Amino acid sequence: MPTPSALENIRIVLSRPSHPGNIGAAARAMKTMGFASLVLVQPRRFPDPDAAAMAAGADDILAGARVVETLEEALADCSLAAGLSARRRDLSHPASALRDAVPGLLAAAVAQPVALVFGNETSGLSNEELARCQRLVSIPANPAYSSLNLAASVQIACYELAVASGGFEVAAARERMAATGEDVAGFFTHLEATAVESGFLDPANPGRFMERMRRLYARAGLEREEVKLLRGLLWRLTAKR
Amino acid sequence: MPTPSALENIRIVLSRPSHPGNIGAAARAMKTMGFASLVLVQPRRFPDPDAAAMAAGADDILAGARVVETLEEALADCSLAAGLSARRRDLSHPASALRDAVPGLLAAAVAQPVALVFGNETSGLSNEELARCQRLVSIPANPAYSSLNLAASVQIACYELAVASGGFEVAAARERMAATGEDVAGFFTHLEATAVESGFLDPANPGRFMERMRRLYARAGLEREEVKLLRGLLWRLTAKR
Repeated sequence: MPTPSALENIRIVLSRPSHPGNIGAAARAMKTMGFASLVLVQPRRFPDPDAAAMAAGADDILAGARVVETLEEALADCSLAAGLSARRRDLSHPASALRDAVPGLLAAAVAQPVALVFGNETSGLSNEELARCQRLVSIPANPAYSSLNLAASVQIACYELAVASGGFEVAAARERMAATGEDVAGFFTHLEATAVESGFLDPANPGRFMERMRRLYARAGLEREEVKLLRGLLWRLTAKR
Repeated sequence: MPTPSALENIRIVLSRPSHPGNIGAAARAMKTMGFASLVLVQPRRFPDPDAAAMAAGADDILAGARVVETLEEALADCSLAAGLSARRRDLSHPASALRDAVPGLLAAAVAQPVALVFGNETSGLSNEELARCQRLVSIPANPAYSSLNLAASVQIACYELAVASGGFEVAAARERMAATGEDVAGFFTHLEATAVESGFLDPANPGRFMERMRRLYARAGLEREEVKLLRGLLWRLTAKR
């Protein structure tokens, strides 16, 4: 399945990351969601064995990462830069919740490069960095503890963009052969007859037993194979009596 | 702001986690999204300094974690258990994408405990573990690289549940004093007069200049303070001529 093209136009920019392990974990997070373009602004240590270790199989993202001196350089060809923050701050920009911001980011990314900018692990985005962004995007978090790990923020942002772009499907379930109406009707007739025959169900005063059974199995959504098993059991139980 | 009550009924179960660092990172991920209940089934090492280090400020979650011997024990009082997987597998249960599964999980959690079950980092959930779950939930991921880190999976799942439960608000922007219609009209009159006076705009043949300006500033959403600054600039420029 091809990577949705809007995602190819979205780059992840980590500004002044302190811990190379976080760079590696961010690369892994990006790759799981189909992103490839990573730009590092003044990383404290990079390349670094800790980055490689945390990247797991995403070393290609690290190998292709661009290292630059200024955020301006990282954003030079971008039509839109969104600063990510989980922190409450005295905002110079109005902040959008991530999910609300995603459609606008994807729309912009159809035509031109778009950047998601993540600040330093401890200090976050500075006001100067924020001033280079046209959007401020917040990941809604527990106000009592909004300390999202850097790579965790990258993971959530990339996940939201990937879901919104309709990118990846969930693995399909094993082929189910649903029971037909005839299968199901045969089962209920069988069940009712067995219940009556056993003395459990009084045909003169059946109450809601069959209604409850129909509701239960309707909720489950019977498969053909399951009907066979259930009827096999019923046969066996009545043969034994 | 109180934690939404459905979230209190949701526990995170890590089955056979190998790396204590992942337990700590999962605790941090949980806490950022307002979750507190962590159950560990046969963790290889716990408690452990690596877990504490990765938990950052979420040591309370680790301190309150329950360690049990079997998944059955972890789920004994749960009305619903959902197994999480990013992997394609020959599914015994039909899998739902996380976002589709969330409303059902939250609805069940209003009344009774609900568990999200995460398997071992390397091997994922075994078929036996999966058989203890009533739902299989997948995080849609890049089919070419679906290797989500354990704590990253916990982060995404908790984020989805928190967003869907309407839990946390994004930090409000600094109070904006939007310009009134009168402010804006005054600005455009001023701008047009200045443009004509300067010779830039020919009143006999104005083209679409003012229309473009109106569109631009409408998009930006002018603040009262900004109108003052722009008009101050216009005055200054015309005074200079």
